[in-house]
Amino acid sequence: MKSNKVTFADIARYTHFSKTTISRYFNDPDSLTLENQQIIARALEELDYKENKVGRILANGRTEFVGIIVPNLYLHYYSEMLNQILSSYETYGYKFLVFAGNSNEETERRYIRELLAYNIEGMIVLSHTIPSEELASYHIPIVTIEREDRYTCSVNTDNYMGGIQAASLLYKNHCDVLIHINVNVPKEVPAYGRIQGFLDICAEHSLPHELILADLGNTYQENKAAIQKLAGYLDEKYAGQKKGIFLSNDTYANILLNYLIQLHGCLRDDYRIVGFDNSPISSEAVIPTSTVGQQIDKIAAAAMEILVEQMKERKKRKPAPSTGPIHRVITPVLISRDTTRG
Amino acid sequence: MKSNKVTFADIARYTHFSKTTISRYFNDPDSLTLENQQIIARALEELDYKENKVGRILANGRTEFVGIIVPNLYLHYYSEMLNQILSSYETYGYKFLVFAGNSNEETERRYIRELLAYNIEGMIVLSHTIPSEELASYHIPIVTIEREDRYTCSVNTDNYMGGIQAASLLYKNHCDVLIHINVNVPKEVPAYGRIQGFLDICAEHSLPHELILADLGNTYQENKAAIQKLAGYLDEKYAGQKKGIFLSNDTYANILLNYLIQLHGCLRDDYRIVGFDNSPISSEAVIPTSTVGQQIDKIAAAAMEILVEQMKERKKRKPAPSTGPIHRVITPVLISRDTTRG
Repeated sequence: MKSNKVTFADIARYTHFSKTTISRYFNDPDSLTLENQQIIARALEELDYKENKVGRILANGRTEFVGIIVPNLYLHYYSEMLNQILSSYETYGYKFLVFAGNSNEETERRYIRELLAYNIEGMIVLSHTIPSEELASYHIPIVTIEREDRYTCSVNTDNYMGGIQAASLLYKNHCDVLIHINVNVPKEVPAYGRIQGFLDICAEHSLPHELILADLGNTYQENKAAIQKLAGYLDEKYAGQKKGIFLSNDTYANILLNYLIQLHGCLRDDYRIVGFDNSPISSEAVIPTSTVGQQIDKIAAAAMEILVEQMKERKKRKPAPSTGPIHRVITPVLISRDTTRG
Repeated sequence: MKSNKVTFADIARYTHFSKTTISRYFNDPDSLTLENQQIIARALEELDYKENKVGRILANGRTEFVGIIVPNLYLHYYSEMLNQILSSYETYGYKFLVFAGNSNEETERRYIRELLAYNIEGMIVLSHTIPSEELASYHIPIVTIEREDRYTCSVNTDNYMGGIQAASLLYKNHCDVLIHINVNVPKEVPAYGRIQGFLDICAEHSLPHELILADLGNTYQENKAAIQKLAGYLDEKYAGQKKGIFLSNDTYANILLNYLIQLHGCLRDDYRIVGFDNSPISSEAVIPTSTVGQQIDKIAAAAMEILVEQMKERKKRKPAPSTGPIHRVITPVLISRDTTRG
């Protein structure tokens, strides 16, 4: 079944060069004259030679593989991040072996062992389960995105700036009270910055505010039930006051928006809403919703840039000693739509 | 930087077995006694031996790689399909090299050449650009999903059944006129079945109907403009009649729903809406929207099943001659929500 297997010997015979010359063509082409390179290139085409990279890996130890572990592809944030990372193939040529973990620590460890067995040159980790200290202990280039990152290089959204942007927008909308709805984010997770940014703006302007950190469940139906309950509570507690509500993602913001419309027949003027992420749902909602947009393309590009830098360094005969993990933050972009107008 | 590289020679020295015995442990373990297997296994642990699969590939030619080409990961349909395909690792152990094409034929050809250079054992193709005849000419196991599939094995939703389900639901809602909005799907693409199913139900019950096949654009903003224009046209043309509208995906259905709500302040009783796919937007919409659900988990599982079968066959000394492409269809599931109630 295997189509023609052309060997170096075949190419040598065909071109009347030695096998060493053919080998040099593949591993150090500039050591041949341009003319000889062209003769061999033409021969490869005529012989319908198919490159066998697995063979080359054995020769030079470079797999050009990068492993990726995402928690899931259900959330748009992860699928779009993967999309952007995959598109870096055009820039760097690295191929991606992708695993979707499921927040199970043991499963993800198994995935990492599998990736290491394939001699990946580096890894991008978006899942949260394995501590960065353990990731660092694998001694291969790793970049993490938007997760605990004390011992690993990382790229994150400037979450603190995002919290500032959201709260400032609500402040400028002359809200009487500012409310932030989030889950109970641990302080070592970058997303905690959203809470801090919100609190700092409230403190700066002495704004009445309420911080609601709650378990909002793990499925859409659970999120919906929890947020509808919170909406009822806020609607009653702050009746007559202009409420500026900042939710930690666009899915939550959309649930709140839809529930308020069902409750009052429209988004009443005493409500202002801001989400986070700039997921499709924020623009596709019945009332296009204001949000703090994550620049996923820039985050992915920065992650690959840092990773490639490290992978290159490792290939040098004398790699420079590591200077400790690099952490880069990407500024979010505030997108003001119809839920914070007027 | 590379952590300990334990060789067969090291293991042989440590266990006092010959290198041949160690090699047999990896390639044909049952040729050793259970006791000797255990001695070697223990030694591997004590030596902290890391398996090098690249080495094994060279020995037995099996990479355990499957290539995947998706058009993008922006549409939930593709990201969820990838999610499901990746999860088959737990069942079959195949690793996935993933490329996101961008509907550019030449780019996707380059991706395929790259995948072949890594000796992938098979490929799953979701992108539409390269004709199935050309895919078949690569002579490796391939399964395509929801695209032209004359010369390749494929798994598709039973689109015809989906069209039947959607139109029947609107018929049971006592609509005066049935409308189907879709792009101009070529007849050789499986999704054409949605149009045929719709038309057949209309013919069977002699229902007044209109088939609108139009260029709805390539971005969300273009989709929105096109569908809002169509909504205005239908609202005027069929004023006073009960309109049952079947749209070819949930994004389109959501645009229509939101526009009608903006137009009339609510979804008026003379409108019934059904989408297709069961994307998150259908349940997360301001009025949860009826849809024809694709069983993405089953489609992905069937695709891997067919692919694994073929990959296994190829590894036999005498593979059975091919019997022509297998085409499997998966029944969709009608999900009736609030846009077709009452």
